[in-house]
This record gives sequence, C-alpha cells and structure tokens, in this order.
Amino acid sequence: MEHFVKVPTQHIIEDLVSAAFNYKKNPLIDKELGKNKRIGLIFLNPSLRTRLSTQIAASNLGMEAIVLNMDKDGWALEFKDGAIMNGNTIEHIKDAAPILGNYFDILCIRSFPQLKDMIEDNSEYIINSFIRYAGIPIISLESATLHPLQSLTDLFTIKESIQQNSKSFTHKKAKIVLSWAPHIKAIPHCVANSFSQWMLMNNEYDFVITHPKGLELSSIFTKGATIIYNQQEALHSADFVYLKNWSSFNEYGKMIDDNSWLLTNESLKITNQAKIMHCLPMRRNIEICDEVIDSPNSLVQQQAANRVWAAQAVIANILKNNP
Amino acid sequence: MEHFVKVPTQHIIEDLVSAAFNYKKNPLIDKELGKNKRIGLIFLNPSLRTRLSTQIAASNLGMEAIVLNMDKDGWALEFKDGAIMNGNTIEHIKDAAPILGNYFDILCIRSFPQLKDMIEDNSEYIINSFIRYAGIPIISLESATLHPLQSLTDLFTIKESIQQNSKSFTHKKAKIVLSWAPHIKAIPHCVANSFSQWMLMNNEYDFVITHPKGLELSSIFTKGATIIYNQQEALHSADFVYLKNWSSFNEYGKMIDDNSWLLTNESLKITNQAKIMHCLPMRRNIEICDEVIDSPNSLVQQQAANRVWAAQAVIANILKNNP
Amino acid sequence: MEHFVKVPTQHIIEDLVSAAFNYKKNPLIDKELGKNKRIGLIFLNPSLRTRLSTQIAASNLGMEAIVLNMDKDGWALEFKDGAIMNGNTIEHIKDAAPILGNYFDILCIRSFPQLKDMIEDNSEYIINSFIRYAGIPIISLESATLHPLQSLTDLFTIKESIQQNSKSFTHKKAKIVLSWAPHIKAIPHCVANSFSQWMLMNNEYDFVITHPKGLELSSIFTKGATIIYNQQEALHSADFVYLKNWSSFNEYGKMIDDNSWLLTNESLKITNQAKIMHCLPMRRNIEICDEVIDSPNSLVQQQAANRVWAAQAVIANILKNNP
Repeated sequence: MEHFVKVPTQHIIEDLVSAAFNYKKNPLIDKELGKNKRIGLIFLNPSLRTRLSTQIAASNLGMEAIVLNMDKDGWALEFKDGAIMNGNTIEHIKDAAPILGNYFDILCIRSFPQLKDMIEDNSEYIINSFIRYAGIPIISLESATLHPLQSLTDLFTIKESIQQNSKSFTHKKAKIVLSWAPHIKAIPHCVANSFSQWMLMNNEYDFVITHPKGLELSSIFTKGATIIYNQQEALHSADFVYLKNWSSFNEYGKMIDDNSWLLTNESLKITNQAKIMHCLPMRRNIEICDEVIDSPNSLVQQQAANRVWAAQAVIANILKNNP
Repeated sequence: MEHFVKVPTQHIIEDLVSAAFNYKKNPLIDKELGKNKRIGLIFLNPSLRTRLSTQIAASNLGMEAIVLNMDKDGWALEFKDGAIMNGNTIEHIKDAAPILGNYFDILCIRSFPQLKDMIEDNSEYIINSFIRYAGIPIISLESATLHPLQSLTDLFTIKESIQQNSKSFTHKKAKIVLSWAPHIKAIPHCVANSFSQWMLMNNEYDFVITHPKGLELSSIFTKGATIIYNQQEALHSADFVYLKNWSSFNEYGKMIDDNSWLLTNESLKITNQAKIMHCLPMRRNIEICDEVIDSPNSLVQQQAANRVWAAQAVIANILKNNP
Repeated sequence: MEHFVKVPTQHIIEDLVSAAFNYKKNPLIDKELGKNKRIGLIFLNPSLRTRLSTQIAASNLGMEAIVLNMDKDGWALEFKDGAIMNGNTIEHIKDAAPILGNYFDILCIRSFPQLKDMIEDNSEYIINSFIRYAGIPIISLESATLHPLQSLTDLFTIKESIQQNSKSFTHKKAKIVLSWAPHIKAIPHCVANSFSQWMLMNNEYDFVITHPKGLELSSIFTKGATIIYNQQEALHSADFVYLKNWSSFNEYGKMIDDNSWLLTNESLKITNQAKIMHCLPMRRNIEICDEVIDSPNSLVQQQAANRVWAAQAVIANILKNNP
C-alpha cells in the first residue's frame, strides 16, 4: 500500500488481517522494521484509542512517534486554493504538508467532518490535500467519511471471534448486522460507512444494515448491502451486532432521535446470542444499555485492544512497501 | 506493592526510601527493568514537576512513557454507575479504564478534588474507579485527598537532609512542623493529609501540625499527630518546617484568609534554624516570603529534584512485584 | 557555546554552518553524543516547525526530548522580582527554572513579545530569567526580539543555494534583500532583527533592508545595514529576497497596512531571478502571492527542512561544550 485512507483490495485486506494476528501473538517481531523512521500523528480532532494504539503500534515497530494536536495549538490550516488568507487560518496546507512530509516518513491524520456541507465533506479535501502535498504515505486516523483503521480492527475482531467459536460457523456464514443506535447529537457517518465498505469488500459474511427510514447512508459505501428497516427482522439469527449512531445523510447532518432503537437484552433474544461491537467512546444507556455492553457477549474491549495490532499491520505494510 | 495511591506499610516505606537513595546515586542502574513496558500518565489536572519527574523516572528505568492530558482533550469521563449519559461526559470509566489497562503496564492518574462535596471527594471515586476497572497497577499523581508521591519525596528529602547534618541529630529526634500558610484561593488538602499520614506511619520524628483554629484536617489522616494552634509555640525548636495552605475541611472547601500566618525570618528565629519545605508551586510573598524561600535553609529545590528518585523507586517497586 | 539566544561569533557561525552541512549528509553520525541526556522544549507560545525540527534534531543526536506546552497548561509564570503573587501567575521563574535546570541537560524556550512595552520586550526578561535561574544551557526557540535558530537556518540555506548555483557567484558577492511584506496583524520583529544581525555578523554578502518609511527596525540589530525605502530600487539585481512582515518599532507594536508592498512576479523582474525566502507560516496572497511562493525560485520548503540541521548543529555544539 502507498496510503491507507479507504478500504484496500481484498488481497491486501487478507495480508493486513494476517499481519494483525501475527503481531498480536508477537508484538515485537518487527522491532527493526521502523528503526530510525518517524511517524507524525496529526490531530485536527481529539482521540483516545486511535492515538494511543497508533503510537504503541509504531513503537512496537521501532519507530519514533510524534503527536501534534493541531486543534489545540490554534494552528488553523487553509485548504482553499488561491485563498486570500486574511481570516482565521494561519498557514496553507500547501506550505504545511510538504514540510511535515519532509520531517516524517509516514503521516497520520485525524479530521472530522463539519456535517454542514455534504459535497465538501464527501470531497475529503483535508486528507486528500495531505496526500497531494505531503509526498509521503498518509494513514487516516478517521476522516470526513471513513475510518478504515477502525474497520480493519473490526474485521480482525470478527475473524478472531469466529476462530474462537469456530464450531458455530462450520456450516454457515456469519451474519453481521450494523444497527443504527440513538445518540444525543449529530454524529459523522465515518465508522458506519467504513464498516459497510469493508464488509462488502470482504464479502465472506451475510451483511445487513438496519436503521430507521430516512437514515440511509451514502450508497457509495453501502451499494450491495441488504438494508432492512425493521430492527427485529434484521437482528434475526445475527451472530454479530455492530451498534453505531449516525446522523442523516440525505438531510445532511440532521440529528434523528428515536429511543425505540436502543437495544436491550430482551430485544437481542432474536439473535444467535450475538456478539456486541462498538468502536467506543459510547454514551451508556443512550446508545447501548448497561446490560448489553456489560454482558459476556460484548466484544468492545477486545475490539479496542485489537486497535494496536490493526495499526501495526498497516504501518508495517506501508514501511515494507516504501523502504 | 500492587498500587501506590496512599501510604504503604512501614516496611515498604523503608524499601522505597532506600531505593530512592540508590537511584539518586546511580540513575540508570535499573535501565533494563522497564524494557518493552509502557507507563501511561493520565492528567485530569495540570502538572509540571509531577509529570516531568515521573516521565524521567520511567525513562531511567527503560520504560516508554506516554502522557495524556485528558483535561485538555474534552474527554470528560463519567464515573456514576448506571448513568444515562446524555450530558457532558462522553465516555464511562468502565469503558475507558480497561483499554488503558490493556495498552499500558502501569497507569498514573492525577485528579484534583472539586472541594464541593466532602463525601464525594473522600470516596476517591476517580482513582478507585481506575483501580477497579483498569486491571493494572495504578500510581497516584495526586488524587482528591492524598499525594503519596509527594510525601515519599518529602520523607526522602528529610532523611537526606538529616544525613547531611547528622551531627545535629545524634542525641534527639528531628522535630517536623507542618504549618498552614496563607493563600488566595481554596486549595485541596492532599499534600497536607498525605504528609501527615506518612509522618505518622514513619513515626521516627517529633511531628506537629499547626494551623488556625477551624482549619483542622480530616482526623482520618492526622489521628495521633500533635496539633498546636499557636504557630510560634509549634515552631519552637523545629528542625523542619513544611509550609502548605489548605482550605477548611469542616466548612468543606471554604477558603480562610489569615496573613498573620505568613512566616518571616523573624518568626522563624524560634526554630532550630529549621529547614524550609514546600511542594511547589508556591505563590511568593503570599504563602512564603522571599527572604524565607531564598534563604540557605530552603530545601524546596532539593525536594523538587528528589521527585525523580521517589517516582523511580515507586515505579521500580511495582515493576518488580508485577513482572 | 554556552547558550544560543543571539548571534554567536563569526567563528562559531562557521562551525555551526559546517556542522549543519554534515548533519544534512549524515543525520545519525553523532547518535551517541546525546545519549542519556534530556532536552526540555518549553513553549510559552505555539510552534510547528521549530518544535518538530528541534525534537527531531535532538533525537538524531540520541537525546530524549520532552515537550512542555506551558501556554496551554495554565501554568502562568511570574518574572517580577519581589512580586506579591496574588494575581494570575502561579509560580515564580525563580522556583520553576532551577528545577527544569535540574531535570534537563539543555532547555529550549519559545516566548513571543507582548508588543506593548518596548523596554520590557527589549529587556528579554523571559529568556534571560531562564538563563539566570536554570543553571544549564538555554536555546532560544524565538524570544521577544530574536530568533537565532531561524537565522542559522536562513544562512545555511543561502550558503547551500549559492553552492548549488556556484557559477553565478564566482565574480560577485550575493545580494540579499530583506523586504518588509504586508500582514493583517501586528507581528514581532524577531525574525527580521535576527536575520539582519546574522547577515551583518557574517558580512559576506551585499545586504539590504527595504521597508516603508516609519518601519525602521531597532538600530541595535540593523546598524551597518543599507536601508532603502524604495522597494524596486532595493530589489535591483537581488539574488535572494527574504520576505517578512513586522510591526512598527518606533510606534511600538503598531500594525502598518500597505498592500503596495506585496510582491508579484512582475515586481520581482528587476531582481537577478532572486530566490525567495520566508520563515513560515505565511498568509498567502497577503504576505506573498501564490505565483511567487509557488515559483521554482522559492526556497521556503528547503529553508524549513533545513531547520532540523541547524537545530542539530546548535544542540551538538552545546553538548560538546558542556560534557
């Protein structure tokens, strides 16, 4: 891979998952791979798991990681070509990205969408500007529409869980349901878009998306997925339920309130004792009931822990392809 | 030790002080002890000396330290069990602590009290929640009611000073006075509580606490200490004077103003040329006069420098007991 | 050198430039020099290039770098001798600097001027207080009136560019013009002062400063320089044009607005196809036109990349002189 900002090919996905399994068993096996190399972690928005897991992954590969919280530093970047910079932005991406590309060997960027202008967000102008001007491999730590590092972790966690319960899956495909969950504010589509994109590319599972009518995700990322508006119907015999809120895509960025979609142990009875997934952070008893998240079926901590191995697989792949 | 969040046993105190002496002589003697281990420094409140000294201590032991300023990142944690999280908190400690426990080998937490609800602060729910949910050793970098890393430094500094002036102490116990000092705002009780707790546990010295009436600390931490309300009487023949402000405990969190307690060289004449201690930061000419803090009797810089060796002793002890 | 807070002697300048050339060729040649040493990077104001390049330079020398953003931490320092600290400052430099000096081997400080009180800013009380109280070598990462690390980079970049185009300079001195450029707010004089100071100390070039009348820099830093108020006249046959805004020095801190000084390719025709320099960040189409900065004559990225080698030369020089 050159960059990691969206779903890669099926072949690369397999390599990444396989590498993640290896790194989980032996974290320091490639300690020499990143020697004397530097990775920059640029945060235009805050992060807990993504930041720490990427930093630890880099360190496991012997790389030096430097974190830059540009959101906190009042270092507002300009992205508009030809801008007359008499406003709040103090530096153009054309000037900032090349020097970051010079200082580092790999650059990781986190940047959330504004959720105000669909076309602007969908253009992914921030991460694409870094790709265009930095001249080095770029890893998305979540961008306006996608969160591929999360999706790799999710896929890896599903495969790991299937391995751990292999008997249940000898005669059938695993059924995976991405279910919309309530929230108190408008949330980006990235995690849901990206999960759908990876499930469809991977194509090993029976993949279903369920959400209230009107909350359709962009068909760019869901084309080919089964969409069922009745949550109970969708959950039937599910082996994995991935819970995630997102705001409206069609009425772009509008927050939709529907507490009837909050899952309980009762409403999960229709599943095949489904494993519960969430990318975290989560608002307990708004997105997910305590009883669901604290049940033995919850994979969220395993999923979060796996972030390290997914990030390590991605960084290693890029290092091997950009020596 | 498993955790370091309050005074340990007398036996462990001795081990820690002895280790601090060793590390001060030879900082890098245990450089291999923390190899390939990670320590997370989580700040819910700001820090200068505590952060730097702990980071340096970890590095001296070969550990990788990662600092996370959660106060700055808008990463407000929820601690209430069963909370319906529709407010400002974005993640429950039940979800955040386990993954931090997964990413790190040791977790250090700084969190100040609100000084609004005595029962809440005394419950130490923040540091205790990290202990409960992280599943790895926790080191307090100052909590709601205690600051044991500071107290270990203080004890080590007293012992070092007594060694350096051993002749004065051949025939008598050192007299140590913790004296309340003025301030311009309401300050937590942690440093004073903790110093008292360690002095009483150590039990080698003649320990006296002096403060204006009404400023009694919680008896949980001072039980057994001699309390004298007359500052001059308390200071008589003192060998060490530890200056520290705290707000009222009984009228919980109330700031008390009494400039007559500001010590001068004149008012210190009654002491035995006492060494002056303070944990820093200090407000000069409010808490302490320039002439006192700048006198040759001031130990504050030595005390601050010793923070590294105290932290190193604590981390090393935990690493040795949790291999 | 003991400290690096202003232009050093001509002899040391030569050593530093020569070291910068060496480190650019072989970044890790002195990897052992800083082993088990620590450098503290204290930011009272934000930084992108300076922070990253210094951190990378230290790491290339095997040093551990710790960044402390004191501006963000509400850790306001008091600098006034004898201050009664009942205001916003929470710690006196007399107490903070010695312990930083104890924790680190070298201390780097960034601190911008207030641009309100000329005498106060010119006294350089912040960086001088660190020198006075820290007891270890101090490196300026930009202070109230100077930015020597930038100037070393600038000189190195000029020498490198002359080497790369050596034929043009066989029969003549290079002509270097520091030209005032417009801006939307009041900007410190540091970069301009410092560039002038280094050009005059180096004394190999034909050095000209041009700016609107009334924008004279302090003669302390420009004494001996040719000052021409007509920009076109100044630019005639220039080989290098360094663009930089500064506020008024005589009407201290006043912002002057004069868009007629914005250079275009057209107005640069009078130069000798001059190389364009700027310290970054820059406001495009306010300070510099896109067409100028994006032309092949722009050295700004090379200049920014060279920050690493300049910082590495300075740190190495200090390490060698303070073993």
